[in-house]
Amino acid sequence: MADPRFFKNVGPFSLAHLAGLVDAELSGDAAPERDVRDVAPLDAAGPDDLSFLDNRRYVKAFQASKAGACVVHPDFAARAPAGMALLVTTQPYKAYARLAQAFYPAPEPTPGIHPTALIDESAEIGPEVSIGPYAIVGPNARIGARCRLRAQVVVEVGVEVGEGTEILHGATLSHCLVGRNCLIHAGARIGNRGFGFALDPTGYVDVPQLGRVLLGDGVEVGANVTIDRGAGPDTVIGDGCKIDNLVQLGHNVRLGRGCVLVAQSGVAGSSKLEDFVMIAAQGGVGGHLTLHSRAQLAAKSGLMHDIPPGETYGGLPAMPLKDYFRLFTLWKRQLKEMEKKKDG
Amino acid sequence: MADPRFFKNVGPFSLAHLAGLVDAELSGDAAPERDVRDVAPLDAAGPDDLSFLDNRRYVKAFQASKAGACVVHPDFAARAPAGMALLVTTQPYKAYARLAQAFYPAPEPTPGIHPTALIDESAEIGPEVSIGPYAIVGPNARIGARCRLRAQVVVEVGVEVGEGTEILHGATLSHCLVGRNCLIHAGARIGNRGFGFALDPTGYVDVPQLGRVLLGDGVEVGANVTIDRGAGPDTVIGDGCKIDNLVQLGHNVRLGRGCVLVAQSGVAGSSKLEDFVMIAAQGGVGGHLTLHSRAQLAAKSGLMHDIPPGETYGGLPAMPLKDYFRLFTLWKRQLKEMEKKKDG
Amino acid sequence: MADPRFFKNVGPFSLAHLAGLVDAELSGDAAPERDVRDVAPLDAAGPDDLSFLDNRRYVKAFQASKAGACVVHPDFAARAPAGMALLVTTQPYKAYARLAQAFYPAPEPTPGIHPTALIDESAEIGPEVSIGPYAIVGPNARIGARCRLRAQVVVEVGVEVGEGTEILHGATLSHCLVGRNCLIHAGARIGNRGFGFALDPTGYVDVPQLGRVLLGDGVEVGANVTIDRGAGPDTVIGDGCKIDNLVQLGHNVRLGRGCVLVAQSGVAGSSKLEDFVMIAAQGGVGGHLTLHSRAQLAAKSGLMHDIPPGETYGGLPAMPLKDYFRLFTLWKRQLKEMEKKKDG
Repeated sequence: MADPRFFKNVGPFSLAHLAGLVDAELSGDAAPERDVRDVAPLDAAGPDDLSFLDNRRYVKAFQASKAGACVVHPDFAARAPAGMALLVTTQPYKAYARLAQAFYPAPEPTPGIHPTALIDESAEIGPEVSIGPYAIVGPNARIGARCRLRAQVVVEVGVEVGEGTEILHGATLSHCLVGRNCLIHAGARIGNRGFGFALDPTGYVDVPQLGRVLLGDGVEVGANVTIDRGAGPDTVIGDGCKIDNLVQLGHNVRLGRGCVLVAQSGVAGSSKLEDFVMIAAQGGVGGHLTLHSRAQLAAKSGLMHDIPPGETYGGLPAMPLKDYFRLFTLWKRQLKEMEKKKDG
Repeated sequence: MADPRFFKNVGPFSLAHLAGLVDAELSGDAAPERDVRDVAPLDAAGPDDLSFLDNRRYVKAFQASKAGACVVHPDFAARAPAGMALLVTTQPYKAYARLAQAFYPAPEPTPGIHPTALIDESAEIGPEVSIGPYAIVGPNARIGARCRLRAQVVVEVGVEVGEGTEILHGATLSHCLVGRNCLIHAGARIGNRGFGFALDPTGYVDVPQLGRVLLGDGVEVGANVTIDRGAGPDTVIGDGCKIDNLVQLGHNVRLGRGCVLVAQSGVAGSSKLEDFVMIAAQGGVGGHLTLHSRAQLAAKSGLMHDIPPGETYGGLPAMPLKDYFRLFTLWKRQLKEMEKKKDG
Repeated sequence: MADPRFFKNVGPFSLAHLAGLVDAELSGDAAPERDVRDVAPLDAAGPDDLSFLDNRRYVKAFQASKAGACVVHPDFAARAPAGMALLVTTQPYKAYARLAQAFYPAPEPTPGIHPTALIDESAEIGPEVSIGPYAIVGPNARIGARCRLRAQVVVEVGVEVGEGTEILHGATLSHCLVGRNCLIHAGARIGNRGFGFALDPTGYVDVPQLGRVLLGDGVEVGANVTIDRGAGPDTVIGDGCKIDNLVQLGHNVRLGRGCVLVAQSGVAGSSKLEDFVMIAAQGGVGGHLTLHSRAQLAAKSGLMHDIPPGETYGGLPAMPLKDYFRLFTLWKRQLKEMEKKKDG
């Protein structure tokens, strides 16, 4: 069970209630009124727990599981052990996510502004907002209804934050407009002066960075992420993007909807990622490139050219990933040949 | 136009005034007393805007631009569209940078120490200093004239900050001496205990890190950057260095003047970068190396050997970049041959 | 000498005292009662200083050194210059580390809670704890004896911190249990919601992350590091691990004892590092892998497979490092052949 010091379980729920939450069909040995008390992985779940099977690699664990109930795809329902209640759905992982949210809902903050928070009198604070200790909201900033700003957050002059957005400890926002229901993790830096300067024999001359950062709705920004504001155009993050920890986005970068940037990846200035593009961990995208819709860049790869829609690139510099793996196979063959020669 | 919530335009300025600011020659259809109201890129500029042409790839945009005025190199002046006023100079990007600064000067902080800032009584605070809320200045620290410390900045015991330096939200400085007119972004960590320990069967033994970080004048340190103090010698950052977001510098690293380290790059302990060395994004420099004057390391490359003056290295491990590209060409040829064999 | 603005030298100590501290044998021209005033590298040390020789590359510097005393391995003792006192030990670097600690002990904080620190009344604070300004300790948190929380540290609800642990400026901890005598650097983010979500045509569905971060004893966590809490299982960091700046650890990662993760490296979700594994700078470990005891991953390498015990892998994707270097040798030969053809 999740540590009660950190997580509050608001169950139990009946099987019928849970099935209803995710439009699953209840089957197996299932009394609809039977209570489920918690969620757990297949190998740890007991008779009062709900588990899930999403990946066919875990069918054996499913067959051996002591879980009282399990979310499962119709294709695997027949393999369930005797006595297990089944919530059958074509999207078991998504259903499990929603059910786990039902057991462990995000804690509701108590609305209110901590007495040590410094809110400029020209700032507009919506209803039911929660602002933590030592947070700072600057002149003319606007904080939407039900936002939650945790301790030590800084929201600079003129910044707007949409309804229901949560900003964690010590994150700092300037020169940006943030959408609704975003989650910005601790230490994120949004709206920094981008890396723009003109060369000069007597030193570099800073080019004023006159754009903003525009964050869509439902965007997640990881811990200690840095997002620079635009140089003139804006830096734009589309609805539903997921940006993991320690990612860097340069000025004028544009992300479409639902892009996923895994930890420690980076995108250089003025590159464009269309909808649902994915950059794996530690990937790097050069400047002024376009990654077309649903393109992917493999982990640790360095991109110097555009990626066509739906394709996956990898390597340094990145090429179509299947080419990179063929090259890798060639290298391993060359190694073997060198080995033989040495022996022969 | 730049969003007035974030940027204040102090124009208009006459063409004559602007030309004078950057020693440009006014030509084209230019009445010297004509007013310019804003700066804008070539494709967005209108008759009241100033734009610039720096890169020959944009000559077409220049010829089609509706900008009222444009900063341009003498070589391209003849191609200007009719009616455009020209500010002709051999360094158009640098001139544009200065003119954009004229329209949008960095906001002048109101000097003064916020009542919640905690300034140790032994600290020396120069004239016209601005210190934000919840900032902390430790014993015997010295803050030079006209410095600006934003909210929640921590300046530890004994640290010295030169005149005119600005330190953004939540940055923390210890064991360091900072020069004049530096810009240190939010969340930067300067003066950390470096990664120094002796192996021991019972665990690692920390080696005291007894050096400092010395930052020259006009240094820019990006958001969430980490710079470790020296182990005995100092970590040294020369005048005018530009360090982008999320960069890591290990103990005893020495940077000459005007080095540029792009985002997420790192330099391991005791390496030396001479003047004007450049490390592209996500590049990594091993320990105890020397990158000679104006050497460059390509993005994502990993350096295990010194780089001679003025040369560019790339790859993993890095070799002369032109060799790496030749190798890459070879690989692509090998891929094609494999393809043929499969087909043949 | 170390800058007295930042470091306090509590010497001098007699040679006899120093030798006793590390069980070294005093030899050479050494009057046991002679005082040593400071530590210094071989080339900078004078007659009142203690230095050390650990690496045979520095034998010449040793022979030329003016150090009054030197920690040295028995194998090199005979090469000491005349007049140098010797502290002979089989582990000179470790002994030097301990002696440097004797001269420059970590400053003892004055116990006490700063009046601006916000400590929830349900939190348990042990004896002799020091808590800095603007720090925050949440409900039911437990801070062990002699802990030191520096300015602006945030310790969230329920978090436990073991005796003698120090947490530097602005670090934030949630959903975690921290061992004894750890050192957590500025800006570290421990216990973040990991990167877990289910795909859905209407957007991503967050999967509740119900695990914790468990930090062992004597763990060092670098500046601006991010460690996500487990998804259900915990994220576990074993005793004595050293985690350098800007490292990222995903949910469910498990580190054994004494692992070393150098700056900007990252480990993806659910991977396991057994005891004394080392990841060099900017290395990346994929998800669900096992790095067996004392395995190593070279700098900038990307790991897609397990590493057997004690082996070193490198490259992208990583292979046994000696294979990667052989491949590199092959590439250089291919380059030479291309060069010849061009010339021929």
